[in-house]
Amino acid sequence: MNASAKPTLAFGPRVRKSPYHAATLRHGAKVFTVYNHMYLPMAYSEEPGRDYWNAVRGVQLWDVACERQVEISGPDALRFAQLLTPRDLSRLEVGQAAYTLITNADGGILNDPVALRVAEDRFWFSLADGDTLLWAQGLAASGEYRVSLGEPDVSPLQVQGPRSADLLAELFGDWVRTLRFYRFREFDFNGIPLLVGRMGYSHEQCFELFLRDGHRGEELWRRLWEAGRPLGVTAGAPNLALRLEAGIYSHLTDMDAATNPFEMGLGWTVQLDCKAPFIGREALRNIAAKPLKRRMLGAEIDGPPLWTGNEHRLPVLADGQTAGYLTSCGYSPRLAKNLAFLMLRRPFDEPGRRVEVQFPDGRRRAAVVNLPWTKRQRQRQGCDKVRQCQAQTQPQSD
Amino acid sequence: MNASAKPTLAFGPRVRKSPYHAATLRHGAKVFTVYNHMYLPMAYSEEPGRDYWNAVRGVQLWDVACERQVEISGPDALRFAQLLTPRDLSRLEVGQAAYTLITNADGGILNDPVALRVAEDRFWFSLADGDTLLWAQGLAASGEYRVSLGEPDVSPLQVQGPRSADLLAELFGDWVRTLRFYRFREFDFNGIPLLVGRMGYSHEQCFELFLRDGHRGEELWRRLWEAGRPLGVTAGAPNLALRLEAGIYSHLTDMDAATNPFEMGLGWTVQLDCKAPFIGREALRNIAAKPLKRRMLGAEIDGPPLWTGNEHRLPVLADGQTAGYLTSCGYSPRLAKNLAFLMLRRPFDEPGRRVEVQFPDGRRRAAVVNLPWTKRQRQRQGCDKVRQCQAQTQPQSD
Repeated sequence: MNASAKPTLAFGPRVRKSPYHAATLRHGAKVFTVYNHMYLPMAYSEEPGRDYWNAVRGVQLWDVACERQVEISGPDALRFAQLLTPRDLSRLEVGQAAYTLITNADGGILNDPVALRVAEDRFWFSLADGDTLLWAQGLAASGEYRVSLGEPDVSPLQVQGPRSADLLAELFGDWVRTLRFYRFREFDFNGIPLLVGRMGYSHEQCFELFLRDGHRGEELWRRLWEAGRPLGVTAGAPNLALRLEAGIYSHLTDMDAATNPFEMGLGWTVQLDCKAPFIGREALRNIAAKPLKRRMLGAEIDGPPLWTGNEHRLPVLADGQTAGYLTSCGYSPRLAKNLAFLMLRRPFDEPGRRVEVQFPDGRRRAAVVNLPWTKRQRQRQGCDKVRQCQAQTQPQSD
Repeated sequence: MNASAKPTLAFGPRVRKSPYHAATLRHGAKVFTVYNHMYLPMAYSEEPGRDYWNAVRGVQLWDVACERQVEISGPDALRFAQLLTPRDLSRLEVGQAAYTLITNADGGILNDPVALRVAEDRFWFSLADGDTLLWAQGLAASGEYRVSLGEPDVSPLQVQGPRSADLLAELFGDWVRTLRFYRFREFDFNGIPLLVGRMGYSHEQCFELFLRDGHRGEELWRRLWEAGRPLGVTAGAPNLALRLEAGIYSHLTDMDAATNPFEMGLGWTVQLDCKAPFIGREALRNIAAKPLKRRMLGAEIDGPPLWTGNEHRLPVLADGQTAGYLTSCGYSPRLAKNLAFLMLRRPFDEPGRRVEVQFPDGRRRAAVVNLPWTKRQRQRQGCDKVRQCQAQTQPQSD
């Protein structure tokens, strides 16, 4: 190895391995990160855009076992789950999921899990990076709530891409084609216990398989791979370009405890008039009552493709002043554009405005746009069904 | 890159970089992990044992900025800090530190930070891997305690090895030589705000510099490096062999919420008769009242040097039965032995016993021994001063 070689990742016993870990290495996972104390594969092909095109043109398996579940069960499960999030969970049906924010007393964002109502008195929060279980356990220590909290043996695997329904219908049956967006059901796949949900970390057609027995991970992966061969199945990973196109945020990249839901454009997940108490209501009410000082917008950045994204938040300048900062950027092969998320302060938060982004190797010009890109894409394609389902999970925005 | 190349680590904006990150790359950091949402360098030299010998023979800088601080301040700081740990903090003086465990209501271990009393009403818990701040914030949400909680801008840097005092005396003054074990003081180093402590993640002579302004990290590193040149300073990292020799555990590797302090041999950090309440007392009292079902011991393993340690916990067998599991192992160049930590159930937890460890490539024989190795080493060398200081922080064990 020479001095300029890329640093490698230590594989040791402190960081946990996914039940699909051996499979991801076998299929050539080359770049990893660590997420919720687990190894998360990030890239397979070294050819720029290859992983992306494999996802959007075919069917792709993503090891996202690092999305750990906080399980809340017991007589007060609903009341305690509600305490954690400003999204009203009272009408969430068994078998239904919802994108939620976990907020602290200041209205800051601690995590942005998908909440699943697994049973009347059993919820899962499927986490972004962060030990939200410790937050929940700290809150529950008062003994006020009759709940059990834990991290169950659940390892999500996402099946992404336009052929994902074909693959799963072949294996599980045609019922998967009729599964509505953000709905899931229990399924026993030859003894492999699953929850199968129509959801995932993109706005493409995708499904999430919540494996409920880590010992069956290798078998599940192999069965999917074999059935997927005729469809050209590939291994992939949560994709920067796909999430930028879709306006999907990454917790700790784009938002954290110093950010509130409204400036992120996630006010639609906050129900201030929710009947049951939740943490952060007073702070969020105060924030909502005042004009926003800054907000997250999209941007299209000039210049050569930004294949590898950014390593740090980058300053954004307008009219010679600091207008805000860039949190994420990358190149969308499908749109043939560099996309970015910018946190822009007033009065610079206007779609159409020209700004400059200070990259380590120089400034680039950019145009501010509304988020997301895929919504407009879907509208152009007349994908009413997707929009209809999307509306169920984003009641105030779509 | 060929298929057998080691996976690289993704460098992106989600995982934070230490103020010393650029310096570690400049000095050739080749292997990283992620710890408390930060990059942590793990190895510099590819020559087995080189980093280790550099540490034990000279002076070495370790970027451990990933040891984040939970800061507790306010009128109820002592009472709230005490709530978090079974170690009695009432007699901890300002300028004194203590190794502590954070326990949950079941007596399980959530973290093993060093607690520092920075002021009468200000404590830091210098964390192992885990979002203990969320646990503390959850507990404080009741509003019962008048405390502020947060993660301050503090970035620890360790100076390790027999020449560490010489290096720091040269830069800071001779007072560092008289600093007692687990004591620290504030020090303004040409405008760089520090806490300088006599502590670190080894049982060698070592110091920990708690940098209180991340913007000054590069400058601090450069000053240390320049002053260290005549002493042969090197860059290093928390070292597997050093921590094994010293019987220092790694949270999430050797212990976690499923482990209690007594079976780890850390009962000396539990003061059941502590006057103020702490979480887990009742459970710990019950555990202490019964014979232990298992406990952590050392082992010396036969066969070729285990330079790279283990990737998983490994089964331990005795008399054809499962006797427990190995959590960590590695080769100590100084002792010319393979060392390991074994969690052994009764009646297999006896020093002197022969066991077998099931490695992926076959079984190896091992002899069970008491922990740690360096204590005996120190006794042989007659290092009374170290033992005396150690006794202050390990009142019931040494």
